[in-house]
Amino acid sequence: MASIFTKIINGEIPCHKVAENDRCFAFLDINPLTKGHTLVVPKQETDYIFDLEDDLLAALMQFAKPIAGAIEKVIPCSRIGVSIIGLEVPHAHIHLIPIDGVADMDFGKPKLNLSQTELGTIAERIRKELADG
Amino acid sequence: MASIFTKIINGEIPCHKVAENDRCFAFLDINPLTKGHTLVVPKQETDYIFDLEDDLLAALMQFAKPIAGAIEKVIPCSRIGVSIIGLEVPHAHIHLIPIDGVADMDFGKPKLNLSQTELGTIAERIRKELADG
Repeated sequence: MASIFTKIINGEIPCHKVAENDRCFAFLDINPLTKGHTLVVPKQETDYIFDLEDDLLAALMQFAKPIAGAIEKVIPCSRIGVSIIGLEVPHAHIHLIPIDGVADMDFGKPKLNLSQTELGTIAERIRKELADG
Repeated sequence: MASIFTKIINGEIPCHKVAENDRCFAFLDINPLTKGHTLVVPKQETDYIFDLEDDLLAALMQFAKPIAGAIEKVIPCSRIGVSIIGLEVPHAHIHLIPIDGVADMDFGKPKLNLSQTELGTIAERIRKELADG
């Protein structure tokens, strides 16, 4: 069965898309730790990040890099933290999280509850930064 | 002034080395979240992970991949979590953390206090896995 991320990539489940290329896809986490929290995934459905072939692993990080730069321009923060956990959805994904302190990367804390409108505005601003970058 | 990681790479500060190539270096975190917690750093002293050139960013992740595999063979865990925070030492570094749950990646929790002997044994076992891999 297709993972929830594959369904998002295929447009079967809506998302606030941030960026896409031939191998990778990025969209806002709907249960964000901080505003701008973004998920970066390979289109290829592989459970574990370190099971990705070297070139796709590299491509995924290189795809994430300008996205992190764009998020930083949209969301005031010290920098973009990176977290890869992989215990829930069996489709490798990189969390890009705007942080001011390490506590902002604590997945045990309550998630933000942002409206679809607010998520849509954030995604649009990140897309604009990427386009203008 | 050289970062603490540059001093470790240069052998001015001792460490429990796990692996090294021409561009990257890996050693055990002496204040680990879990046993086997390893730091992977580029030899080039760059503060922010996303300021690394694309090829070094790729090389760093590709260097980390077999190390994660070796750690998994040495330390019983569900998988290796990845965290990049970058608010403390101004030299980009990837945390590889053996995890069974997301709480194992909570940097707010007390660190383990392992003896130098125990750290040395863990590093040696990881090096052996890498050599045998």
